[in-house]
Amino acid sequence: MKSYRKELWLNVPERRAFINITQKVEDCLRESGIREGMVLVNSMHITASVFINDDERGLHQDYDDWLEQLAPHAPISRYRHNLTGEDNGDAHLKRQIMGREVVVAVSDGRPGRCREE
Amino acid sequence: MKSYRKELWLNVPERRAFINITQKVEDCLRESGIREGMVLVNSMHITASVFINDDERGLHQDYDDWLEQLAPHAPISRYRHNLTGEDNGDAHLKRQIMGREVVVAVSDGRPGRCREE
Amino acid sequence: MKSYRKELWLNVPERRAFINITQKVEDCLRESGIREGMVLVNSMHITASVFINDDERGLHQDYDDWLEQLAPHAPISRYRHNLTGEDNGDAHLKRQIMGREVVVAVSDGRPGRCREE
Repeated sequence: MKSYRKELWLNVPERRAFINITQKVEDCLRESGIREGMVLVNSMHITASVFINDDERGLHQDYDDWLEQLAPHAPISRYRHNLTGEDNGDAHLKRQIMGREVVVAVSDGRPGRCREE
Repeated sequence: MKSYRKELWLNVPERRAFINITQKVEDCLRESGIREGMVLVNSMHITASVFINDDERGLHQDYDDWLEQLAPHAPISRYRHNLTGEDNGDAHLKRQIMGREVVVAVSDGRPGRCREE
Repeated sequence: MKSYRKELWLNVPERRAFINITQKVEDCLRESGIREGMVLVNSMHITASVFINDDERGLHQDYDDWLEQLAPHAPISRYRHNLTGEDNGDAHLKRQIMGREVVVAVSDGRPGRCREE
């Protein structure tokens, strides 16, 4: 079985941000030369998510508001995890909603594209 | 590596519905002739989910109520995404809870079956 | 394609528990002799989850509290699913938040490790 692995490094100055890596994944797939199979795209950090959805600014704000409502950042003391000295207890919860990974089928050298609507 | 891909088209007149595609996936697997490996089943639409759980009417109603509670459909103005002219902002959020895809191990030509309980 | 499958059986006396199976998965991978590919780790029970996150006691308590807040166990009558005679309607919902499976890339015989932070 042919396999190809690449690490993408993203620096995010904000506490939360939405970054479209579709083009980077497509570039990676092209580099791999793989025509049929699956591409796994996962976060290597446990407070980050990889997911597939609409790259629309309003939706990103909706996600942000919603996640903050489901698992508020403050007060920090709300989470036992923060007793370790960290302040990102909320992010560990938010990550479970948004997911860690996506697996996408590759056919004829291209990943399946969603219908954006 | 052997691979096989099939698109299933489902018409859902209601705003939300639960459709059991287990048999269709098993048929697809049989058509493929694949005996060992993995089957990826994912939604090609960003407001739909593929997930594995009990095909029980009461549970489906529970999911429906719960998702509506976590991310209400109305008022439409609740979601910035709906400023684009769409009215499905809630569905983009609900989809994150229910997930986009499942990957199932295939052994001896059959997908792993869950214990239904 | 080389494949290897193993079932892990876990007995959990409590209603909910967090069990670290990382070492078991690494052992399984070593047994398989597979050097490059993917490992799928999924729950075979529809009220259990497999996920990757920090093995930190405070965080586990945070998850437990949060899941109970999002989908309370009691009153049992809260869920239509419990009309079947079961009392685990809440667990079917909680499982959707925490996810069913993870897929991890394997390189040079080792699974990708997350940065724990």
